[in-house]
Amino acid sequence: MSEQSGVERGNGDADNDRSVVGSGEFQLIDRVTARLSYGSACLLGPGDDAAVVAAPDGRVVASTDVLVEGRHFRRDWSSAVDVGHRAAAANLADIAAMGASPTALLVALCVPPDLDVAWAEGLADGLAAEAAKVGAGVVGGDMSASPTLTVAVTALGDLGGRAPVLRSGARPGDVVALAGRIGYAAAGYTVLSRGFRTPKLLVEAYRRPEVAYPAGPYAARLGATAMIDVSDGLLADLGHVARASGVSVDVRRDAFEVPRQMADAAQALGVDPYGWILGGGDDHALAATFPPAVALPPPWRAIGRVAEGAGVTVDGQPWDGPAGWDHFR
Amino acid sequence: MSEQSGVERGNGDADNDRSVVGSGEFQLIDRVTARLSYGSACLLGPGDDAAVVAAPDGRVVASTDVLVEGRHFRRDWSSAVDVGHRAAAANLADIAAMGASPTALLVALCVPPDLDVAWAEGLADGLAAEAAKVGAGVVGGDMSASPTLTVAVTALGDLGGRAPVLRSGARPGDVVALAGRIGYAAAGYTVLSRGFRTPKLLVEAYRRPEVAYPAGPYAARLGATAMIDVSDGLLADLGHVARASGVSVDVRRDAFEVPRQMADAAQALGVDPYGWILGGGDDHALAATFPPAVALPPPWRAIGRVAEGAGVTVDGQPWDGPAGWDHFR
Repeated sequence: MSEQSGVERGNGDADNDRSVVGSGEFQLIDRVTARLSYGSACLLGPGDDAAVVAAPDGRVVASTDVLVEGRHFRRDWSSAVDVGHRAAAANLADIAAMGASPTALLVALCVPPDLDVAWAEGLADGLAAEAAKVGAGVVGGDMSASPTLTVAVTALGDLGGRAPVLRSGARPGDVVALAGRIGYAAAGYTVLSRGFRTPKLLVEAYRRPEVAYPAGPYAARLGATAMIDVSDGLLADLGHVARASGVSVDVRRDAFEVPRQMADAAQALGVDPYGWILGGGDDHALAATFPPAVALPPPWRAIGRVAEGAGVTVDGQPWDGPAGWDHFR
Repeated sequence: MSEQSGVERGNGDADNDRSVVGSGEFQLIDRVTARLSYGSACLLGPGDDAAVVAAPDGRVVASTDVLVEGRHFRRDWSSAVDVGHRAAAANLADIAAMGASPTALLVALCVPPDLDVAWAEGLADGLAAEAAKVGAGVVGGDMSASPTLTVAVTALGDLGGRAPVLRSGARPGDVVALAGRIGYAAAGYTVLSRGFRTPKLLVEAYRRPEVAYPAGPYAARLGATAMIDVSDGLLADLGHVARASGVSVDVRRDAFEVPRQMADAAQALGVDPYGWILGGGDDHALAATFPPAVALPPPWRAIGRVAEGAGVTVDGQPWDGPAGWDHFR
């Protein structure tokens, strides 16, 4: 952890005051750091000016995502542990979408001075638990007081000798495939925004996305020509691939099974579940394109085709449902 | 730039609306990205799920620092370009203090919706210009709307085959040495906080620290046993080294010349300039310890000695001036 964190030092009354100010900057850093695991790639963890992480490939993949309270999460919808899982997942999925294996996270945490220390500890637990799924850890970070609770995470990863899989490599004739759940988190978000707490499957999917991390490097080994982490919504993100690659993408609606709980929730709320599947984000599914000759083993499943042209269609037609995912609008 | 940035999309009236909301998320990202240089280590820059940066050493050094408006900077004291310089410097200095050469920055920027786009562009200019001093660039990042203007920067660096220089390696008998200006930024901060805008030398030092980046890897090659970036204040940061190394440090007051403008400002404000030199932070000087046999070429200059024991003294006595640097208190 950098020492230049700007969190105010304690007033010596830490036993009675569970706020981050009462606990003091260095004590808070110690408390949070004590809960972290650093992962096998970590050569030097928190406590010095910087961390040192193994980069055996000779290149490092790096991505940053920031979550702001009130825009990307609400403390009444998600626990601190949930927010930690989601903040880590958003970044780890970006690394996987390059075909790389995540190695480490760094976290910049901005906390209101009256935040309970337990919240920061829960966040650390969630970050560490999500990173541990891929053998990575939290190797460093910074903390500051701020009026706005903010979690900025940087993820690092290793390409294992492979070329990164870009958004720009899709070619006409390629198969479009998906790995991981899709629409669940958006459905959970809608459920929560309507004031419900169930179905648990959907609400939990919003709180803690289940990302098919190993599918990223696996796709690279299978010969994926393009890949992206679905965070804006499937059609919006395939649109990024189509634009970067100079191609068109068509998705087959019948490639998506609507799970029963999602169908029930959609009916109860009077919405089209395909809006969640095709337009919802935050599951961090991986979408990739493969040459047609590639046999696609699970978790990859074909959902469409790449062709000449531009834009994204569903069963050959423009999609008129919600196309993207805007947080808290 | 990640697409999951949560900045609201534009309303199509970008010609008349210079706020970040009016310009829209993707347009703002494009505007800012267009101003960046990526640096020679950047193998893949913004625009995909993650960046790819060369890590020829097989290890990557990584550090994160966050700057929050009202705590670490004020828009009436520093321009956007200044804040960019300072945010980059704080991180690049952490990399140099490990004995590494900075290779890349990633930036998470949280902006109030009414922020003028020119401010974000100025920030990008400052970040890029500071990074360019060491041949590095801004390779990726994220943006979100937020009530609180926040800049979180992650810096990456390469060790060039050397061991990282930790805080924990100082040994009794070592010489304590310093590279870079000290006390200037703290003096500039005091001047600004008293409502003055001059002397320019001091105010500018606060706005844009001049960091002796190459002195970090140079110290590693010279055989430095410990090193730290001075950001909390010289005595406070030498205290981190003393504690991590299990030694004591004594600093010679006569090792520091008080520059004329600092002496004049101290006299005019009725303060002790050694409070700035020994207790002030934000110049990002590098402090290191060297075995006594090492000849110290510039910019390194001896300022004290390591001995058995614990704690930090000045001319053998406890220092009773301000010992650390708390932002905006």
